[in-house]
Amino acid sequence: MGIKVYGSMVSIATLRVLLCLAEKDLVFELINVDLASGEHKRPHILARNPFGQIPAFEDDDIKLFESRAISQYISRTYASKGVDLTSNDPKKATVESVWMEVESQKLEPAAMKLIWELCMKPLLFGQNSDDAVVSVEKKKLESVLDVYEARLSESKYLGGDSFSLADMHTVPTIKFLMDTQMKQVFDARPCVSAWVADIMSRPACVKGHWVSVVRLLGVGLILGAFRCGDGPEHPPPPPRSSPSGLTSLSNTHNYTYICIYKGAHPQTLGSSTPHSLLVKVLSLYLYVYRISN
Amino acid sequence: MGIKVYGSMVSIATLRVLLCLAEKDLVFELINVDLASGEHKRPHILARNPFGQIPAFEDDDIKLFESRAISQYISRTYASKGVDLTSNDPKKATVESVWMEVESQKLEPAAMKLIWELCMKPLLFGQNSDDAVVSVEKKKLESVLDVYEARLSESKYLGGDSFSLADMHTVPTIKFLMDTQMKQVFDARPCVSAWVADIMSRPACVKGHWVSVVRLLGVGLILGAFRCGDGPEHPPPPPRSSPSGLTSLSNTHNYTYICIYKGAHPQTLGSSTPHSLLVKVLSLYLYVYRISN
Repeated sequence: MGIKVYGSMVSIATLRVLLCLAEKDLVFELINVDLASGEHKRPHILARNPFGQIPAFEDDDIKLFESRAISQYISRTYASKGVDLTSNDPKKATVESVWMEVESQKLEPAAMKLIWELCMKPLLFGQNSDDAVVSVEKKKLESVLDVYEARLSESKYLGGDSFSLADMHTVPTIKFLMDTQMKQVFDARPCVSAWVADIMSRPACVKGHWVSVVRLLGVGLILGAFRCGDGPEHPPPPPRSSPSGLTSLSNTHNYTYICIYKGAHPQTLGSSTPHSLLVKVLSLYLYVYRISN
Repeated sequence: MGIKVYGSMVSIATLRVLLCLAEKDLVFELINVDLASGEHKRPHILARNPFGQIPAFEDDDIKLFESRAISQYISRTYASKGVDLTSNDPKKATVESVWMEVESQKLEPAAMKLIWELCMKPLLFGQNSDDAVVSVEKKKLESVLDVYEARLSESKYLGGDSFSLADMHTVPTIKFLMDTQMKQVFDARPCVSAWVADIMSRPACVKGHWVSVVRLLGVGLILGAFRCGDGPEHPPPPPRSSPSGLTSLSNTHNYTYICIYKGAHPQTLGSSTPHSLLVKVLSLYLYVYRISN
């Protein structure tokens, strides 16, 4: 029993939930859903998320889907654990909810199209970005960040003086965008830029929770080492007996590992994609580790 | 002071807020924002909604935007008024929040594209619908409604046994779609169909709150007569001294009227659009009233 997340480290919505669990310092189990083989459309996932998407979430008898509803549940249910992510003051909570809606309705639509064009298409599927789409969506992103800039010129965080779900919900998408040409759109706005630096340097984002160091050592990749308990700051080596292909190694020393062995999933990772490009996209939140055979 | 909504009766997001206020039986003032003249991009609206969109909402010193954040504020702040729209039980509230996310993330994206293609483009702008877009979005709508059908086969409302914001947020978009060829997509699903009939027949949707009767009498149109207080079930005639063009007549006998005089805004209403078609789209929530000169 306990908290289980059915998801994938390459899913922004899953990462939103994992980040929330890390902020609340909660122990959880990540059950990897193999998107490449269409596992998310199989009955055991459809029973947990009727749209056949990830994440799906379980906390004993509570079964939820939709990442933002899950993070709100976690924040409310585990109010006394970890970092406060929702204000107890009704007025402040109302302002936070406005900016949660802004992330959902304004930031994400533009950001997801840009992430698809600039990350997923070229790096995972070996396709060219559509410059026209990028141009249109970049303008939308600029408009949204103009509003963020004005807001962040008057308060440290989107919801007010404290970090909240309104900020946290933006982290996975911004993490992706900051490793693309869109970084300049953030950098051009001083208050946004300072805020991004702040929220990306939180303990839940670094120090082993969400390992962002990448080294490609030529033998194997570990797609994410996510601390889900009181493990050490740096993750220990993963088990050596893992099967080839995409696999969830689940909890070892309180870290969840997901491994992709070199060439195991060429159709997903794009076997023709240069490793340097793969590293670029993976470097957002992946940890590369030598696996000796 | 009191509650003020800056919006338009042709804005789905505005209607979501007005419907919430009607469910809570609250007195409010609707200040019409003239979309046709770009009033939503002027400083007095930008100061209330930094995206230059509607609605914007004020309740004394509380100033909000984003319709779903506004409805949650209204529901929480006026919990003792009108209909309960949010459960007090945390588990039930969590389930409601999942289905609020489903509306926001799944239903609305497909619905808004269909409403644009099937209502706005042909009826307000005299443009042809793009059949390819309609076909793609119809499939998405069908997939979403398959999930709704399964959900509504096990509970009367989306959030559980009681009507909640999860249902209410869907009403404005469904009201539009039910007057298009998409009605068959709803009708083909018995549980969805019964649920739509139920939520559309609520007092806040009919009986003068949200007048859906349309008669085109050839002299003038009233775009919406929205009861904002304890007025009679049927709205009284609007003032006769209204200026031509789109105008907010604000509160008369506790009704808010918005009038469009025949031909006053041909660029908005599509002067070449047959009246029968105009009636079709307006019939969703408009009341036509003879205005003698």
